Amino acid sequence: MRIVLAPDAFKGSLSAVELCEVMEEAIHEVAPTIQVTRLPLADGGEGTLNCLVMATGGEKQLVFVQDPLGRLMTAYYGVLGDGQTVVIELAQASGLTLLKEEERNPLVTSTYGTGQLIQAAIEAGYRKFIVGLGGSATNDAGVGLLRALGLTCYDANREVIQDGGAALLDVHTIDEESMNPLLKKCTFVLASDVENMLCGVHGASFIFGPQKGADAQMVRQLDDALAHYAKVVQQQYHVDLTALVGGGAAGGVGASLQFFLNASYRSGIDVVMELIGAREVIKQADIVMTGEGRLDEQTLAGKVITGITGFANEQQIPVIAFAGAVELTSRQLQELGVTAAFSIVPGPCSLQEALNKTPQWLKERVIQVIHLYRQAKGE
Amino acid sequence: MRIVLAPDAFKGSLSAVELCEVMEEAIHEVAPTIQVTRLPLADGGEGTLNCLVMATGGEKQLVFVQDPLGRLMTAYYGVLGDGQTVVIELAQASGLTLLKEEERNPLVTSTYGTGQLIQAAIEAGYRKFIVGLGGSATNDAGVGLLRALGLTCYDANREVIQDGGAALLDVHTIDEESMNPLLKKCTFVLASDVENMLCGVHGASFIFGPQKGADAQMVRQLDDALAHYAKVVQQQYHVDLTALVGGGAAGGVGASLQFFLNASYRSGIDVVMELIGAREVIKQADIVMTGEGRLDEQTLAGKVITGITGFANEQQIPVIAFAGAVELTSRQLQELGVTAAFSIVPGPCSLQEALNKTPQWLKERVIQVIHLYRQAKGE
Repeated sequence: MRIVLAPDAFKGSLSAVELCEVMEEAIHEVAPTIQVTRLPLADGGEGTLNCLVMATGGEKQLVFVQDPLGRLMTAYYGVLGDGQTVVIELAQASGLTLLKEEERNPLVTSTYGTGQLIQAAIEAGYRKFIVGLGGSATNDAGVGLLRALGLTCYDANREVIQDGGAALLDVHTIDEESMNPLLKKCTFVLASDVENMLCGVHGASFIFGPQKGADAQMVRQLDDALAHYAKVVQQQYHVDLTALVGGGAAGGVGASLQFFLNASYRSGIDVVMELIGAREVIKQADIVMTGEGRLDEQTLAGKVITGITGFANEQQIPVIAFAGAVELTSRQLQELGVTAAFSIVPGPCSLQEALNKTPQWLKERVIQVIHLYRQAKGE
Repeated sequence: MRIVLAPDAFKGSLSAVELCEVMEEAIHEVAPTIQVTRLPLADGGEGTLNCLVMATGGEKQLVFVQDPLGRLMTAYYGVLGDGQTVVIELAQASGLTLLKEEERNPLVTSTYGTGQLIQAAIEAGYRKFIVGLGGSATNDAGVGLLRALGLTCYDANREVIQDGGAALLDVHTIDEESMNPLLKKCTFVLASDVENMLCGVHGASFIFGPQKGADAQMVRQLDDALAHYAKVVQQQYHVDLTALVGGGAAGGVGASLQFFLNASYRSGIDVVMELIGAREVIKQADIVMTGEGRLDEQTLAGKVITGITGFANEQQIPVIAFAGAVELTSRQLQELGVTAAFSIVPGPCSLQEALNKTPQWLKERVIQVIHLYRQAKGE
């Protein structure tokens, strides 16, 4: 029997790589002869870089950059096993987890550091980029990122605007004059599971602003700023950033990079599965075990698990899902293509307890499922 | 495929009969052709009467009795399908759930009503009794029960003692003179999962007193009273009630009935399984699904599930357990003979939420397990 382990991270507790370790340990405790292949997944958010670098046998490059508040820090970009493709993760230099709770403020946080990572990779000779958009602390429409690559936004007094989401309200003119000329030779793929637009009540500020530290008033301020920025772009380039699917990803990075870097926008899980050759691996499996912190309505809308089930179902390979919380009905799980789903929790408990005990609880649940499966197969 | 459903009740939410209904509904939603046999179980506690009457096609007889506080109420005894065997459940007339929280007080609660049930059945011509000991609100050593059958306990002034656990401290002489003479023709089997002795820190008062409403001081008072009562019995009959296994069941009913009614003391689940022919039914199963509110250390010590697994394992039939909370490790579950165990909860939640949502959550979990099982079998 061959089992492929293809989980997403359980955010707040274990990374996809750690989940694979625990699951493999559980399986081999029951049946050491089962062949296990680890295929930790990601959807463009935090963990995407590690996932891609590890799966392809690539390497990570350290760069000095600015964090979302302009403080010096180190961050990585990844070079995949092909030696050519660079993976940039927004969470690395512009991530929410880099800030303390009280520091979170999308009025001022900037994606400048992510631009520095790209700049460093271009200087190192790379031209092919995957940019994972998840986990950002910012709502600056990627203007900070583009500034690191030479773009300048001026206000009405021809002064360079400040960094951060609030300052976009001051943009009057955009100047590409000083942009790195090598960008013309680069290709960018944005990897994200977000389909939100740039502006409005379903846009970047309203949907993702609050988790980045914005209160109701700040959300409106940020949305106004993005709308103003889009209006300037419209006037200057006759392009409507507010009409782009995924334009609201990473606080508007999705919109700006599609236009200014001519980036293509793709489903994060699709990009990841393609780069790591997930389909070839899954094809060999008798069972796929996947997992995600929560199996909920968002899962249905296209997170990691849909990437797995879509392909596995075609191949008629059962998919067993483990989650902190299974909030979908059996009917929804079936539509999703999940053969069976189990919460790892052994009974009533708090979220905090579940986060703390994920490793041992997951292990127990995997063991029970393997017992059941082997029994049913008559092994 | 044939599935036998053999759950215990989930105390505080669903009875064993209700659990069977939900599980069957879940199974037939996935696969209408699976043959399902319902075998709701009980261990001598609340639900034993319904379980036995329903499984054997017997009937229930209504009797006017006194509740644990002496108030008039109606309660049932059961006559099994053989038309001969009567099942008496302590929870019926002397049960904890008959009282409001603030009424619980084992210093005064009495088993008198249960004695009335037995008396009524004797008068109706029955001679063969099963007495389920679980769920009592009392700590009166069954002296109330025996009083209804004609036993009299006098104090030092030759006055009849009062009912309740505290009054046992006044017992000076026991008089069997007026006991129902037909008792000599009766046989009694006590069905219980309790192995505690009458007195001491592992005895009736210390272990079960608190859940019946006793505080620390009352527990000591109750234990002293039982010890005094046992001393009187020792002096008068030269029998040591404190040495009887199960003597502490139902607040001392276990001890007194073994002696005064010559009752035999047996494992509740064994008695139930025997009476309903559980082994014959389980033999036909491809899978047994069982369940219990909590799978914990107490389960290992011999509640319903051990009764099932012991026999099913001999027959090499897999046992899948569902529980509100699975508190045993995989290793312990394996020792118990459970193939796989799953909590019904879908994620972090409160106990109250789990109790309220047991039906829908159990259904979802059963569906997932059936999906998995069928997939594994290649169906």
